[in-house]
Amino acid sequence: MNTATLLISCPDRKGISAAIANFLFTYNANIVHSDQHQDNSENLFLMRVEWDLTDFTLDMAAFAPAFQPIADRFAMQWQVALSAKRPRMAIFVSKYDHCLVDLLHRHQSGELHCDIPLIISNHEDCRALANFYGIPYHVVEVTRDSKSEAEAAQRELLQANGIDLIVLARYMQVLSHEFTAAYPQKVINIHHSFLPAFDGAKPYHRAFARGVKLIGATSHYVTEVLDDGPIIEQDVIRISHREDVEDLVLKGRDLERIVLSRAVKWHLEHRVLVYANKTVIFA
Amino acid sequence: MNTATLLISCPDRKGISAAIANFLFTYNANIVHSDQHQDNSENLFLMRVEWDLTDFTLDMAAFAPAFQPIADRFAMQWQVALSAKRPRMAIFVSKYDHCLVDLLHRHQSGELHCDIPLIISNHEDCRALANFYGIPYHVVEVTRDSKSEAEAAQRELLQANGIDLIVLARYMQVLSHEFTAAYPQKVINIHHSFLPAFDGAKPYHRAFARGVKLIGATSHYVTEVLDDGPIIEQDVIRISHREDVEDLVLKGRDLERIVLSRAVKWHLEHRVLVYANKTVIFA
Amino acid sequence: MNTATLLISCPDRKGISAAIANFLFTYNANIVHSDQHQDNSENLFLMRVEWDLTDFTLDMAAFAPAFQPIADRFAMQWQVALSAKRPRMAIFVSKYDHCLVDLLHRHQSGELHCDIPLIISNHEDCRALANFYGIPYHVVEVTRDSKSEAEAAQRELLQANGIDLIVLARYMQVLSHEFTAAYPQKVINIHHSFLPAFDGAKPYHRAFARGVKLIGATSHYVTEVLDDGPIIEQDVIRISHREDVEDLVLKGRDLERIVLSRAVKWHLEHRVLVYANKTVIFA
Amino acid sequence: MNTATLLISCPDRKGISAAIANFLFTYNANIVHSDQHQDNSENLFLMRVEWDLTDFTLDMAAFAPAFQPIADRFAMQWQVALSAKRPRMAIFVSKYDHCLVDLLHRHQSGELHCDIPLIISNHEDCRALANFYGIPYHVVEVTRDSKSEAEAAQRELLQANGIDLIVLARYMQVLSHEFTAAYPQKVINIHHSFLPAFDGAKPYHRAFARGVKLIGATSHYVTEVLDDGPIIEQDVIRISHREDVEDLVLKGRDLERIVLSRAVKWHLEHRVLVYANKTVIFA
Repeated sequence: MNTATLLISCPDRKGISAAIANFLFTYNANIVHSDQHQDNSENLFLMRVEWDLTDFTLDMAAFAPAFQPIADRFAMQWQVALSAKRPRMAIFVSKYDHCLVDLLHRHQSGELHCDIPLIISNHEDCRALANFYGIPYHVVEVTRDSKSEAEAAQRELLQANGIDLIVLARYMQVLSHEFTAAYPQKVINIHHSFLPAFDGAKPYHRAFARGVKLIGATSHYVTEVLDDGPIIEQDVIRISHREDVEDLVLKGRDLERIVLSRAVKWHLEHRVLVYANKTVIFA
Repeated sequence: MNTATLLISCPDRKGISAAIANFLFTYNANIVHSDQHQDNSENLFLMRVEWDLTDFTLDMAAFAPAFQPIADRFAMQWQVALSAKRPRMAIFVSKYDHCLVDLLHRHQSGELHCDIPLIISNHEDCRALANFYGIPYHVVEVTRDSKSEAEAAQRELLQANGIDLIVLARYMQVLSHEFTAAYPQKVINIHHSFLPAFDGAKPYHRAFARGVKLIGATSHYVTEVLDDGPIIEQDVIRISHREDVEDLVLKGRDLERIVLSRAVKWHLEHRVLVYANKTVIFA
Repeated sequence: MNTATLLISCPDRKGISAAIANFLFTYNANIVHSDQHQDNSENLFLMRVEWDLTDFTLDMAAFAPAFQPIADRFAMQWQVALSAKRPRMAIFVSKYDHCLVDLLHRHQSGELHCDIPLIISNHEDCRALANFYGIPYHVVEVTRDSKSEAEAAQRELLQANGIDLIVLARYMQVLSHEFTAAYPQKVINIHHSFLPAFDGAKPYHRAFARGVKLIGATSHYVTEVLDDGPIIEQDVIRISHREDVEDLVLKGRDLERIVLSRAVKWHLEHRVLVYANKTVIFA
Repeated sequence: MNTATLLISCPDRKGISAAIANFLFTYNANIVHSDQHQDNSENLFLMRVEWDLTDFTLDMAAFAPAFQPIADRFAMQWQVALSAKRPRMAIFVSKYDHCLVDLLHRHQSGELHCDIPLIISNHEDCRALANFYGIPYHVVEVTRDSKSEAEAAQRELLQANGIDLIVLARYMQVLSHEFTAAYPQKVINIHHSFLPAFDGAKPYHRAFARGVKLIGATSHYVTEVLDDGPIIEQDVIRISHREDVEDLVLKGRDLERIVLSRAVKWHLEHRVLVYANKTVIFA
């Protein structure tokens, strides 16, 4: 189905729904998904609406000028996305390949609506896998001293490939503030704990030492503050005293794969709205 | 907050959202919750919208005549409920009291927006508990031979108390077809299995015998076919080989309490829409 | 069944199982539950064994002198408990009564193998409930200035009633170091977050602000460091953006009840072994 | 670590633990994992014990004659497995490749302690994947008429490769009774429902039609009765009314992968004991 998706957030007041519904009805939109939310603590109205373009009488090239008066009236932040324009996603990876395997297989089987023009890594390890799926693989080495050159090289690659979304699939380097600032809400990370518990290094070791009864994984947008960006998805799994740190690492991989892939899928389908350092998921 | 809630289902076509949004905006409704769903396999449009009545300029006594033209245009099935009018709920119970304790405590602490004018039981066991919470307790004995007289007595009590919803809180008698037909989508049962597995008698024993790794509970509307009505809520919990049937019974009680109370709460808040022997939960 | 339960921890080495199994077999023990665990990171052997006393030929009064040579040989820490001797449990509560209702109902229905000689509160609110279940209810007011006198009064009550276990059922006062030091591994608390996330005050508010996708509850032994004692049980539940702080509080109550009651039950059945600020649960 | 694992089941009576512990201690076994269970309803004693062979003074070639007298005394069914002898596992697959991708990646990353000498399929689809992981791929076409010839060819391949375990990774053909009888407790299947609900064909469609609130997956040993063998592992995931059958199929894949891989891993580590058409998992 050829659809358009509109994401809106604005101060809550009367008449917003009516204005949007009327606008879409005027151009004969066939709505396939509509969901809205009021956050009372922030007095915000948030909405996602997706419609079939088959009978839509407004040329999408003319959408912005046609919709802007409504957006202005309600002081909306908004964006519209076309299913025909597949987002372009880059994957960053280091040596652990379980999330990469998972994302590439999902992409191949049609679960992820995007193109993947490249994979960037600081190691050679995953090249064969990338080749198997036919994705160009670029190694950009990163050392303590070469970080800014490395990031420059990475950003050049991203720009040359018109990248819309960067997924850190257990990429073990911390990105600089400059880098993350250049891609706001466009870098998704998977952290191997139930944030905010065990942010930072070695979360499985610390979970084991603390004696928690469940371990978790968290997918979030990357911001300047480490492991503090808006959470997109989390999940947990029960562990027992019979499991040592190595077992937690293995068990956690299943969580990491699933939590990251859900977050990526929702982002690619324009189901995520960010506000107040949180997310609304219109799933 | 003093609100009205509208539940709608109708064949899906263009313009429904706009018509409803305009209608509400015309009378200055302040929408506090709105959720809609398209079921493509049934070609149905389903919606729940709740608005604050403070600034609403249409007298709710005049709502039906004002809204009916829209309902007619789209062939809607609809109902409107006022938060000011608390539903009247009867609880049926036998000897197991765990669900009853739970419902009465939730009611007392303000979680359940309803009045409970009476409890009906086929045993004396729970009378002290009913007394503690100040709810009239009626014993109507049921034997194989007295069932129709018993149900007549029960229905008289229900009618005399203006009951809108009947909750079977582990009530161990099967209601007759006449009874359930008289209260369509108004009788909620809790079954102690993950339906459709282990419908009928002794589900924990059969779950134990089959060696399942999770046990469940299911809350559903009662229909003529035993354990086959529209499912409102389900949940499961993991068990281990160390647990025997008695342990499953104990563990299952926690599920039964929570699953039943969620279903009751959603029903009371007009969040449940039934179609095609399923439910949509606008939660 | 009339049973004895032995809990053991000692440095791991060969022959421990054989020594214990032979000792029990010598006196004709009929073992009903046996579970052991090696923690390699601490080089510890941990065991729980429970046997039917019907055919046991050693008088339990003579158990300690008979077993001590084995304990000495392997440098064991050990304790033995008799099912015939029901532990005596005190419940501390403030105004929130949901955990108290839950514990009292479970006790009444036979789920918790203990006596409850008293409830202590800093408020009058739960007196009627205590009366209904026939448990003496003592109000000990606590103010910033009266804390040490209050704790003295509480400890006198505990001693006078021969209390073995104190359960803090959403008791809103922090106990002093002197108090907790006097009851090592004998005070169980329920904290309304997935520790170590959101330790301290107002965890639901902070969970809401952080935008987590799951909320949790944690039951743990109380130590000198707030919310840092050995974790006995934890669980989580998914939340959505539609839920505000008040909803989290309500939803969390279900977790608190279940997580606390599991921890209490395991403690009462001598299924919990503490080491290295963690627990092994022999469930 | 070089270990041996003993799995035992026998009628429950006194002295079994002592006999086993003494036997192992006699030969200086260093026990690394020991777990036992009494099933009272069947009066069975079930045990798994694993020990490090480093200091073990009995040659494992002489284990059977040395242990048999104890086994005879207690009427034990027993088996011993050596970690040094990796089981040989065959994977059967049709067109859906998600479970195959998962198993092969886990095998490559060292999670599954086995060799995989071959993959058998009734389609060409997964050949490239098998090649990537370097596993020989055999296509054996199956039609209604050629089933018995096809199974003969499959069994020849299995025998030629010394296969110990067959994993049906969404293999879409039903095996004949002759086939399953030849591999008792050696064929593991993944069924895409929470058995016993929705056994047989099209479980996701039927789950959707019934309106369940959770979908599941079940891994079990294959017996003569379809979807009725001993359950090894199950899990479920919540769905919403927004998800159609296709969404359930996608979501279910994650369950299928994880549930199947857990079952396979436990089997390969000799953690599964079957009795009374159920399993004990010594995990």
